[in-house]
Formats: sequence, C-alpha cells, structure tokens
Amino acid sequence: MTRYQRLAGLLAERIEQGLYQSGERLPSVRILSTEHGVSISTVQQAYHLLEERQLIAPQPRSGYFVTPRKAEPPVPALTRPAQRPVEITQWDAVLELLNARQEKDILQLGSGMPDLNQPTLKPLWKIMSRLGQQQDVRMLNYDNIYGVPELREQIARLAIDGGCHLTPDDIVITTGCHEALSVSIRAICQPGDIVAVESPTFHGTMQSLRGFGIKAIEIPTDSGTGISLEALELALEQWPIKAVVVVPNCNNPLGFIMPESRKRALLALAQRFDVAIVEDDVYGELAYEYPRPVTIKSFDDDGRVLLCSSFSKTVAPGLRVGWVVPGRYLDRVLHMKYIVTGSTATQTQMAAAEFVRQGHYPAHLRRMRQYYQRNLEIFTHWVRHFFPCGICVTRPQGGFLMWIELPEAFDAVKLNKALQEAKLQIAVGSLFSASGKYRNCLRLSYAQPFTERTGKALEILGAAVERAMERCGLSVHAGPSHEQEGRVSERE
Amino acid sequence: MTRYQRLAGLLAERIEQGLYQSGERLPSVRILSTEHGVSISTVQQAYHLLEERQLIAPQPRSGYFVTPRKAEPPVPALTRPAQRPVEITQWDAVLELLNARQEKDILQLGSGMPDLNQPTLKPLWKIMSRLGQQQDVRMLNYDNIYGVPELREQIARLAIDGGCHLTPDDIVITTGCHEALSVSIRAICQPGDIVAVESPTFHGTMQSLRGFGIKAIEIPTDSGTGISLEALELALEQWPIKAVVVVPNCNNPLGFIMPESRKRALLALAQRFDVAIVEDDVYGELAYEYPRPVTIKSFDDDGRVLLCSSFSKTVAPGLRVGWVVPGRYLDRVLHMKYIVTGSTATQTQMAAAEFVRQGHYPAHLRRMRQYYQRNLEIFTHWVRHFFPCGICVTRPQGGFLMWIELPEAFDAVKLNKALQEAKLQIAVGSLFSASGKYRNCLRLSYAQPFTERTGKALEILGAAVERAMERCGLSVHAGPSHEQEGRVSERE
Ligand SMILES: Cc1ncc(COP(=O)(O)O)c(C=O)c1O
Ligand SMILES: Cc1ncc(COP(=O)(O)O)c(C=O)c1O
Repeated sequence: MTRYQRLAGLLAERIEQGLYQSGERLPSVRILSTEHGVSISTVQQAYHLLEERQLIAPQPRSGYFVTPRKAEPPVPALTRPAQRPVEITQWDAVLELLNARQEKDILQLGSGMPDLNQPTLKPLWKIMSRLGQQQDVRMLNYDNIYGVPELREQIARLAIDGGCHLTPDDIVITTGCHEALSVSIRAICQPGDIVAVESPTFHGTMQSLRGFGIKAIEIPTDSGTGISLEALELALEQWPIKAVVVVPNCNNPLGFIMPESRKRALLALAQRFDVAIVEDDVYGELAYEYPRPVTIKSFDDDGRVLLCSSFSKTVAPGLRVGWVVPGRYLDRVLHMKYIVTGSTATQTQMAAAEFVRQGHYPAHLRRMRQYYQRNLEIFTHWVRHFFPCGICVTRPQGGFLMWIELPEAFDAVKLNKALQEAKLQIAVGSLFSASGKYRNCLRLSYAQPFTERTGKALEILGAAVERAMERCGLSVHAGPSHEQEGRVSERE
Repeated sequence: MTRYQRLAGLLAERIEQGLYQSGERLPSVRILSTEHGVSISTVQQAYHLLEERQLIAPQPRSGYFVTPRKAEPPVPALTRPAQRPVEITQWDAVLELLNARQEKDILQLGSGMPDLNQPTLKPLWKIMSRLGQQQDVRMLNYDNIYGVPELREQIARLAIDGGCHLTPDDIVITTGCHEALSVSIRAICQPGDIVAVESPTFHGTMQSLRGFGIKAIEIPTDSGTGISLEALELALEQWPIKAVVVVPNCNNPLGFIMPESRKRALLALAQRFDVAIVEDDVYGELAYEYPRPVTIKSFDDDGRVLLCSSFSKTVAPGLRVGWVVPGRYLDRVLHMKYIVTGSTATQTQMAAAEFVRQGHYPAHLRRMRQYYQRNLEIFTHWVRHFFPCGICVTRPQGGFLMWIELPEAFDAVKLNKALQEAKLQIAVGSLFSASGKYRNCLRLSYAQPFTERTGKALEILGAAVERAMERCGLSVHAGPSHEQEGRVSERE
C-alpha cells in the first residue's frame, strides 16, 4: 500500500466513524500535510482517491467536503391494486423485455437471469460432457412422463430443507418452473375462473393465467411480509376465487420472505375457503438466511398446495428443469403435462440429477447466496448514492432482484425508452401488474458482477430518474419523502 | 457355409421361384440325397432348417410340404367414425401406454420411439460431449423465445426439401412436436371450438384438444390417401369448424402419404371455408420415397398453415427439440409458447443444430429410411405368417408404424391385457379415436431391430388374435376375408 492510499484509508475511516460529519469541510491540504508528515501531493492524491469513491466532493475555492450521506430510502408501502378480477394485459411489454434479453450490447438490469460464471458451476460442465461420452441410449429417448427417476429422488431429498417429506412419486418434472406453473393453473382452473395473486406478481404467471382465459385479482402485498391476508380474506368472501398463486420465499419482484406464521395463516385461509394454493418457490433456495425458509407445502395436510420450482435461478435456466409437487392434483397435472410438452428433455434432467447427487448443489448454493447478498450491499450503496430522494427501495431477503418505487407520476416505460440510447434496460413495473399498474416502479437485477459498467449504468439511471422527476415537478432533494407518510403499513 | 445350409438355400430358392408350389409335397429325403449327392443326414438337416424358417412343414408319415402362402391381407377400408363433434375421452388408456413405456422387461410393440442404436447417431454423442467441454455460458442460459438462432437457420435450410422457403424468423422452436401442436391449437382456438381431425389420429393431438376444452370431429380417412376431402367438406358445411389437424406425410397411425393433388385440394378447402390447417410433419422425413414428399405448407400463400415438426422421430425424442412455422399466427404462437414453457432447453437445441450443420443429418436419415423400410418387409412377412386371415394391414409409405384392423367384434384392449403375462405390449386402436372407436384395431411399431424375441412376440400375438377371434366365432381360415368385400374404397 502506498503512502497516499494509507492516508486515504485513514480518512475514510474517520468519515465512517463520524469524526468528519456529513457535509463538513475537511482540513486543508496544507494542514493535513503537516499533521501526517507527508508531502502536499500525497494528500492531494489521497483526496482524489476519496473523491473517486465519492466519499468527499470538492467545492470550488473552498476545498473538500464530506459528501452528504443520504437517509436510507424507505421501503415501499403496502401496495394498493384495484381489488377486483381483471383481464390480464401487458403481453406486448413482456415480449419486448424477452426480445431485449438477446441484445448482447445492452446491459440488462431488468432480467431474471442468474449469474452463470461462478466456479461452483464447473462440475456441471464436466457432467454434461461425461454424459455425452457415456452414450447411454436412455438419454436420447423419451423420458418417463413423471420425469427421470433419479432426478425425482434428488429433488425429494432437497425438499426436506424446505420442510417437505416427499417420495419421488410425489414429484412431476417439468420444462422449467414456467411449465410447472402453467400445468398447475390448468389442473385447477377452467377458463373464466378467478385466481388471486400478489401485487406485484411475476409476469410469467400472469400471462399463463391470461393464456388460459383466467382472470386475476391482485391482492395488496407488503414488501416485507407478503400478501395481505386481510385483503385476501375480503376477496375470498367477495369473489368465487379458485386458487391463490404466491411466491412466498424471496419473492419476485419484492424480495420478501413471508413469516412462517403468515404462511400458516394463508394455508388456513385456503382451507377455510377451499381454494388451492400454487406456491412458486423458484427463488426459495437463494434466501440469505440459513437454514432456508420453509414452504407452505410443508404444512399442507390435505394436498391443496401445488409446490412449483426449478433449477433456473439456483443452477442454470437453460437446462429447463423444473418440477411440481401437485398433491391431490397429481392426475390432472400429469394430464396437462402430457398435453403441453409430452415429456421433458432427458439429458438436462440427467445432468441436473448428477449435479445434485455428486454433492455440488449445496456448495454452489452457499456460494451464490453469499455472492448475491454481497452484490445486494454494493448495489444498494450505489442506488442510494446515485438515485434522487423520494424513492422507496425494497430490502430483498434473498434472490437477486430489487424493486424501486418512484413517485406516482413517474413513468418507467418512458424511462426505459430513454435508456435505450445508453444501451441500458430495466424491467418496468407495469409488467408485474395484471392491469398495468406500477408504471412508477422498476425492477433491477443484481445477479451480474458489479463492474465499472454497472456503476456507470446506475449513475445514468439515477440521473435519468432525477431528470424525469424534475420534469414532473417532483422533489428530488434530500430527506425522507413526504409521500411515504401517512401510508398504511402492515409490517409485523 | 456348411453343406446342409447350401442345400437349404437352394431349396428355399426353388420354393420362392414357385418350382415347388405352395402346399406341394417335397421330394423324399432319399431322392434328394441321391439327386444332390449328399448324405441322408445332410438332407434332414436342410429340411429342419427350412422347417424352422417355416417355409416347409412336416406331415406325419407323408414327408414335408411347402407351407401354404397366405394371400396378401387387404388394406383397411375408408374409416367410418361418427361424424359429429365429440368430447375426447381415452386419457386413462393413453396414460397406461405411457407408463408401460418404462417397464424395461416388456417388449413394446406399440410405442412411437425410433431406433436409437444406429451408427449414424454417433456424431450426436460426440457433439453433446464437446458442448460440455466448450463451456459456452449461453448453453446454460435462457434462450431466445424464438429458439436458438443457428438451429432455426438449419431448420429453414431443411424445410426446402419439403418445398418450403423460410427464413429463420418464420420458425419458433418448441419442446418437441407436442408443444408445437399444443401452442398451435391454442393460438387458433378457444375452449368450446371444434377441430376436424383424421380418424384415426395421434392421441397426443387429441389429448391437447381435450385439455383445452376443444371438441373433435373425426373425419373418415383412407389408409392410402388420407383424410376424405368429401367428408371433410360436408363437415365444414355443417359445423363451425375452426381448424383441421392432419398428418399428411407418413401418417401416424395409418402410414399413408397424401398425394400432392389432395394436399392442394385440402388447402383450397381450408381457404374456401377460412379455417386454419395444423400440419404435423413429424414423420415426413422418414418417407421411403425420395425426394421426400412436400408439405401442405409449401403451397400456403396466405399463412393459414401451421407446420409442426420435431427431431423426435428422425433423430432422438429425448432432445425435445421441435418447431412450428406458424404463418400468420406467429404472434399468438409466441405468446402461447411463453405461457406454457417460457423457452426450450438450450443445450439440446445447440446439439441438434450442430448435428445438422455438420452434415450428419442427411446421412442418418438415409440410413433410417432404408432401415425402417427393410424392417417393414420383415415385419410384414411375419405378420402375414403368424396372424390369422380376416385382418387388414396397412402398407406404410414411411415411418415405422403399422395399423392392423381385425374384425369388428374383436377387442384389442382385452388382448393387450392378456399379453401382459407374455411381457408384450401393443397400442390399442381406441387410443386413436376421440370416442374410443377402433377397439378392433392395433398399432405396431417396427422401429426396433427384428430379433428372435420380436418373432416370438408376433407368433404369440398372432396366436392370441386367432384364439380371440375363434372365441368371437370369427372365421380365421385362409382366403380373403369376406368382411372386406363391398366396402367403399376411396383409393385414387
Ligand atoms: C417467480 C418466478 N417463477 C417462475 C419463473 C420461471 O422459471 P423457469 O425459468 O424455471 O421457467 C421465474 C423466472 O423468471 C420467476 O421469477
Ligand atoms: C403424429 C405425431 N405428432 C407428434 C408427436 C409428438 O412428437 P414429439 O415427441 O416431438 O413431441 C408424435 C409422437 O408420438 C406423433 O406420432
């Protein structure tokens, strides 16, 4: 470490500890030089370094000041969707997002792809290569309609961590969690039926509902504790709801983990009104807490919960290996699976089974959880740094997705268009509402390694948000947004 | 070759050439011994060999006779389904067939699996192994919703053989032909709609219709020329039919190739009544004629044909790589694909693309066509040999499936149950009808190499059919069945 780096470290520590307060003027170069017995240029270099790190900022003719630390932005309040069954729209916007996925020179801050460059994934490559060498004809043939037996065995073993005691025969393999969700929905519902969803909710689920002619009723959802049970109960009383679809663990897009008591209460509600629960656990294994949170399925004593998941977020989405534990709907789910795809690719199932069987999965999960949690810290720091005040930001408890709520008048769709020029893409909030609500929100992914480019992107994004807000006449100055006050919070 | 084998070969040739006629007494052992200058025991060994091959049969105390050659069984006549829209049943029977697929010690004569042990498939293993070694991260990631671009390029190239000039952007990759069919159907139809199908028709298609609440109207179909256009026209006049689903090339289960004129006429009919055509070409590349027959899609000038296919029958079903060329329904098909699976496994798509790009596909196809055609000859011979008279047998023009029609009173479902003990499975005809017709029919596959076990199986099958027919009081004696006379044939 050079002299100026040591000095910068010392100063940064003092700022951190509050010895130099936010907004305070720092000692002059000359004073510091004397105090620490270093040359003037060493102090100047140290100050430059701190400036680069944005801990201090120069003021023309008056020296350096400690950059004001912004207040932690508040979390989004309980959402307030229109609480009646609606036809689902937004397909065009979803397609746009999907197509953008392919444009290599665009930085995707909105997509749900996991990071695939970690060393703990290396054994998967080896396994795939070995499977090719083994020339087991089974790999080229139609698979059992339930799915490859050894994979179902491994999944049954893994399910114990989520509190479920299953046999391989309780499990049906699917082409990703996507197919798990769509066959589950089809197994329960008829066209014209109503399904309750969290609001916001994953657009894939909503498009599945739409595709089968099902209406969605969006239920208010808290970014810390999940779907409002009070609002859901009211909806169940008022409408002939057939099922509730939830992502209770590391929710997409809000990032919450539903507390166990609320999971139990949700199941009790489902039993009271005799509706099914489709539980999407696709991010569940990426919870930052350890051991991982339990599934609602683990409390299910009458088979009304259909647990859906996949290796898409934890291992690799290109495998398209997912599964459903359909409980009492097993026969219908099998039928629907036969109808939509017949069977799932055999080789990728065998590869996934082998990856788990050889013990690589827990090691990989451990690494990914730490990696995403670390990324979240960095990401949060820079969002706070670059974004104007007046925004709400979630505190994800797992996964790699962050939800940012901007003032009501903000238009994320316009923002996304403006970002195209800067080769940047976010996921606009309206994708996550049946009726196109949440145009003032955006979802960001922090799955990819944080690089200079990401930093630059967040800076551009923050500036664009600020400009847009100013254009709307919205306050961007420091201090907690007044918008937030007086809102109902359901936090436990 | 030993002396007795040479002698046996000579005698077999004479029988083949008609020098010894069917039913005729063969020369005594002594005479032959003198004639050919070989020992008595050599002649006896030669006769035993021919007896084993069932070319001759001993009659107690009177020597050997040439086994009577049976008349070629007639082909099934035009089918006569109930020509009104019906709800589709038969799922339980389909599930039974699917589950049986897994029982290793059962000889599957009913399944639609191709042979996967040919040397021309070896490069595919190498490609899969190499893909693992290359560690291209793209392989583990979500694929483009259209499908891997280089695969679509190769498919566009292949489509030229079927008469289609496509660009990669005309093609959507799916999880097998199954998904291609189900997304096509969903792109065109709403629940409650009516779709016309060939009768008999592939059970997967019918279950897809059923799963989406669509009714099927079964149209009479000829085992040589395909769907009856006259009957279809009547149905189109009478019912609000939305689409026609056909397998015009190497039909499953009837094996016909629709003549080109009829393909054009079918399209004209679809245009006149403004309905869509779902063209399932999954066996089209396995036509015994060369060049392969054209698709209806090749005549399609207003985008109303949705061409569905896959590599499941030609290369390997475990890849689950299929595609649809959806014409004017592209947007809806993309939406439906997103709804049911999101995207298709990336690695198997890349493997298929590479297999074609490297030029292995035409060589493999050539081999498989010859192999299946040769298998058909052997199979036909033994079916004729072991089965009683009074049956009708198709003359497949491609693929590896044969359809056998037994007299009306026959029950193939019962037969299949009886065969379980002998560790044998066929596909019962009723799987191929929306309303469970064709219980008197069975579908056999000749995809697997013809072994002693297959021969034995056909013998058991033939005997069981004969017993069952006798129990029904049906004639099993030689000579063309009288049942067949007077039936309407639509053969061109
Ligand atoms: C909540 C949720 N469920 C399901 C899926 C789909 O998962 P898969 O890629 O396994 O189909 C996603 C992926 O975006 C998701 O975020
Ligand atoms: C006529 C027909 N269409 C479609 C399919 C399904 O093909 P895939 O395995 O590619 O889904 C089959 C397979 O049995 C078939 O026989």
